[in-house]
Amino acid sequence: MKLDKLVGERFKERPSDCVIDSHALTVRGGYIKNVANGIYSSYPTLRRITKKIEQIIREEMDAIDGQEVQFPVVMPASLWEESGRYTSIGSEMVRFTDRNKAPLVLGMTHEEAAVHLVREYANSYQKYPFMIYQIQTKFRDEGRPRAGLIRVREFTMKDAYSFHTSQEDLEEYYQRCYDAYNRIFARCGIPEVVTVKSDSGMMGGSISHEYMLLTPVGEDSIAVCSECDFRANIEAAPCIVENEADAVLNELTKVHTPDMHTIEQVCTFLNAPVEKSCKAVVYQRNADDTYIVAFVRGDLEVNETKLRNTVGCDIHAAEIVDGCGLFAGFIGPYNMDERITVLIDGSLKGATNLTCGANETDYHYTGLNIERDLGEVEYCDVAAIKDGGICPVCGKHSITISRGIEVGNIFQLGTKYTKAMGMQYLDNQGKAQYPIMGCYGIGVGRLAASVCEAYHDEYGPIWPMAIAPWQVHLCCMRADNAEAKACADKLYADMQAAGVEVIYDDRSVSAGVMFSDADLIGVPLRVIASPRNLREGVCELVSRDKKISLKIPVDEVVAKVKELINELM
Amino acid sequence: MKLDKLVGERFKERPSDCVIDSHALTVRGGYIKNVANGIYSSYPTLRRITKKIEQIIREEMDAIDGQEVQFPVVMPASLWEESGRYTSIGSEMVRFTDRNKAPLVLGMTHEEAAVHLVREYANSYQKYPFMIYQIQTKFRDEGRPRAGLIRVREFTMKDAYSFHTSQEDLEEYYQRCYDAYNRIFARCGIPEVVTVKSDSGMMGGSISHEYMLLTPVGEDSIAVCSECDFRANIEAAPCIVENEADAVLNELTKVHTPDMHTIEQVCTFLNAPVEKSCKAVVYQRNADDTYIVAFVRGDLEVNETKLRNTVGCDIHAAEIVDGCGLFAGFIGPYNMDERITVLIDGSLKGATNLTCGANETDYHYTGLNIERDLGEVEYCDVAAIKDGGICPVCGKHSITISRGIEVGNIFQLGTKYTKAMGMQYLDNQGKAQYPIMGCYGIGVGRLAASVCEAYHDEYGPIWPMAIAPWQVHLCCMRADNAEAKACADKLYADMQAAGVEVIYDDRSVSAGVMFSDADLIGVPLRVIASPRNLREGVCELVSRDKKISLKIPVDEVVAKVKELINELM
Repeated sequence: MKLDKLVGERFKERPSDCVIDSHALTVRGGYIKNVANGIYSSYPTLRRITKKIEQIIREEMDAIDGQEVQFPVVMPASLWEESGRYTSIGSEMVRFTDRNKAPLVLGMTHEEAAVHLVREYANSYQKYPFMIYQIQTKFRDEGRPRAGLIRVREFTMKDAYSFHTSQEDLEEYYQRCYDAYNRIFARCGIPEVVTVKSDSGMMGGSISHEYMLLTPVGEDSIAVCSECDFRANIEAAPCIVENEADAVLNELTKVHTPDMHTIEQVCTFLNAPVEKSCKAVVYQRNADDTYIVAFVRGDLEVNETKLRNTVGCDIHAAEIVDGCGLFAGFIGPYNMDERITVLIDGSLKGATNLTCGANETDYHYTGLNIERDLGEVEYCDVAAIKDGGICPVCGKHSITISRGIEVGNIFQLGTKYTKAMGMQYLDNQGKAQYPIMGCYGIGVGRLAASVCEAYHDEYGPIWPMAIAPWQVHLCCMRADNAEAKACADKLYADMQAAGVEVIYDDRSVSAGVMFSDADLIGVPLRVIASPRNLREGVCELVSRDKKISLKIPVDEVVAKVKELINELM
Repeated sequence: MKLDKLVGERFKERPSDCVIDSHALTVRGGYIKNVANGIYSSYPTLRRITKKIEQIIREEMDAIDGQEVQFPVVMPASLWEESGRYTSIGSEMVRFTDRNKAPLVLGMTHEEAAVHLVREYANSYQKYPFMIYQIQTKFRDEGRPRAGLIRVREFTMKDAYSFHTSQEDLEEYYQRCYDAYNRIFARCGIPEVVTVKSDSGMMGGSISHEYMLLTPVGEDSIAVCSECDFRANIEAAPCIVENEADAVLNELTKVHTPDMHTIEQVCTFLNAPVEKSCKAVVYQRNADDTYIVAFVRGDLEVNETKLRNTVGCDIHAAEIVDGCGLFAGFIGPYNMDERITVLIDGSLKGATNLTCGANETDYHYTGLNIERDLGEVEYCDVAAIKDGGICPVCGKHSITISRGIEVGNIFQLGTKYTKAMGMQYLDNQGKAQYPIMGCYGIGVGRLAASVCEAYHDEYGPIWPMAIAPWQVHLCCMRADNAEAKACADKLYADMQAAGVEVIYDDRSVSAGVMFSDADLIGVPLRVIASPRNLREGVCELVSRDKKISLKIPVDEVVAKVKELINELM
């Protein structure tokens, strides 16, 4: 490929709407073009990268006996009604009707389609286990697309679905897939990806893992124990808190706290530590706007996903209206209106002499003692684990909170979909059984952007050899110099003949323009033919990451390039 | 791959809803599963075929300097408003809104997206020519999906877009793509595909070609001249008719023709040949339901696409209501109500003494002479060319009408999209110009089904080696026989080691089941290890098309198989 014909715009200025580096560099380097909110076209440079990622994924999926299939992007609503998700999934699923008014949806995941495809086929235990996968476009109507390819609405995903006759068999396969995923990320150049326990969300099922690339710009929060191997998305991390009971239990006392609407204001006013308070966080159920109040220890926050899982339905931050039984800023667990669902977080267990709202405007209580004042309490776990918190596995105060980009996920689904959709097989006793499923996803574009986020400098991405758009970037400095041009032309032809993927820049531009373009394209090896070097009979061979910088005799360049490619692959 | 783990159902009975063989065989052989009207999932066997087709297409597109990109499936309506097609395309385009009520569409073709991607990039003549292409899912809300993968609503398509600075450059590239397409179809195993001139339809532009696989089950009609190389879709074929004028021109005479609503009835009643009549065909404009009457010679039919192109808007068959000025069955060109648009087809030129409707219930005219009675007439070309008709190139009565499946198309688009969307470049004089475009499409799934339609027998598809799901189908007859099983297992291992794509059937099933499954999978070469053959130290090596039937010493099988694969590729 000659660079002067490469379709795609490159420019210097960082676009003002790009918050993270990979977003800015993929826009500046001619990788992506925004078509609509969260919707992008890919230029050839990115498409070359995603094709290589797709091929790596294919090879690893085939290596664990996956069979590639293809499901539709557009599916009938009836398929999603079978599983119950047509109603349980909110506005992130696009719904529309065709010319005959038949209701359709855009696929955001394909559990239903997978069951539909094999429901009749897999009617006997002898056909199990098996795994089917596809690499295809999906659409999720995200509320807040952001960060370039990291969070988009339309994306290419590898999604895989395995079917089993026992939990043990699923777990064994889950482990194979777990390992295959690690190989995929390692081959794509980010072996540092870690797995964390995750919340299963709308997928259902119990055990699931996310593959996280730890980076400060990640949008997920991950609790990592520095003392043991516990790692979990904070959405799936239990929050453990130890409260020491005061020796003396004070009486429940109503105090006047005019215009103090936050627990911090009240604690300051009363000169009480915020850990000795009981904070109210209010939500409403999406379905009927009824209220839920979660009480957590004053120094903690509610994790909305954990709360959603606890109540088992979709919720939103509350709007408190007159007469609803709640007094904003003065809500407490004692004498709460009976219409309200009350949840007491485990962080309040054993806590004594707390400050809390009095369910009356401008009044709080002091001296709340949960067990004494509220009777029998069933504690839940809705608080978010904190930096410095207690590890739920080793019990030490060793939790740190990191940020990460989720580059893949795997789920043990159980029989949620097969039961709902009536898929059965006959076991070896001739008895009808529901197969057990697993599902496994990787977003291709997000993976490409994550690699860029992990490996770049201020000038551009530093692509790993295995997924780089080209293997070698050949620069002819001073294309007007006949000798340099002839040398570079020959190297271009020789490298192509040797099967090297080479992009060739023979434009009459300054070294600055040539190198800044090369930096933006991020090809791992660069060969520079220039009149000055040729006087010594050599070319420069440098790597994008600056670790290699050599002068090689012209007639040894191709061999050396091939050797380095093999080393770096 | 072991056959007993291949995901997909195979069965014997031809499904009652399958009209054409490729549809029946792809359902019976476990290639496709219907998800909704015109929407299918692909089983692994088909996906292996389509991946090979996609790879062939990629190689040929890359060979003519194509650069692979990816456009979105979901696009903002605003992009289609720029080109004007948001309103000009009818209900085949799916329109919907996202969570923020922003109007979106599903991509059915990507001219708009292509211009959007390169509009800023290609701002100088030096960047031309270039071609970008993608292979991706498209959705067209077809009114009548049919014939399995031949006419669907969701499909995978390779669509390519080229950009040029002159018509000559476009034409040169168009020819390169024309040739590349021929190579693609030849490599996919259907070199007999022919090109025909075509109607450009909603694409716009003037010159276009379709690639047609001629088959009686095709849904397109193609006019082919047996005397010269003229070939055209009848939608794009001029209908040439010679009328000999009668020596004596009769007077225009009104005759009573009670209850005779068709021109055939009237001609029989009047004992006049149907060629001496003037037939009315009535349509309405979609936009406002105003009427259009096309008059053609009585023995001819109107081609709706030619009519649509002539009037320049979307039309539908008319419903004639009272007071509209038309009298169903008695419509004629003489004294026509002025509210009606009248088109006179060239087939009536020079015709004399015609019978036609009198625009009055139960009356016709005889003795109509177009030039004499209608004054100056501007003839159009809306009649369909007929079998035995006159070739518009060589002028002989040498036209035959064949049926074909359109497996690809190429269009010269001109500046329709670049002008509408304001894409310009500076030419070498520094003057702003609109680039000239071409576009080039191939449907991947339809191509697979077409190959099946062209090459199958009653038992299953006969896949060409280059796109076959596997290269060799290895059958172990009597897997309970230790010697046969050991031999087949070794052949399976050896063939895999030799890079042969092999599917291995070692099930304990009858020869009948084994061979009927093999026929349905349609792999070109079959190796059979059986106790009987092994007593002679040989395996059977037969081809799916029955042209090869050999007995090969066991230790020569792999070498022979490799040799045949190379020959057949």
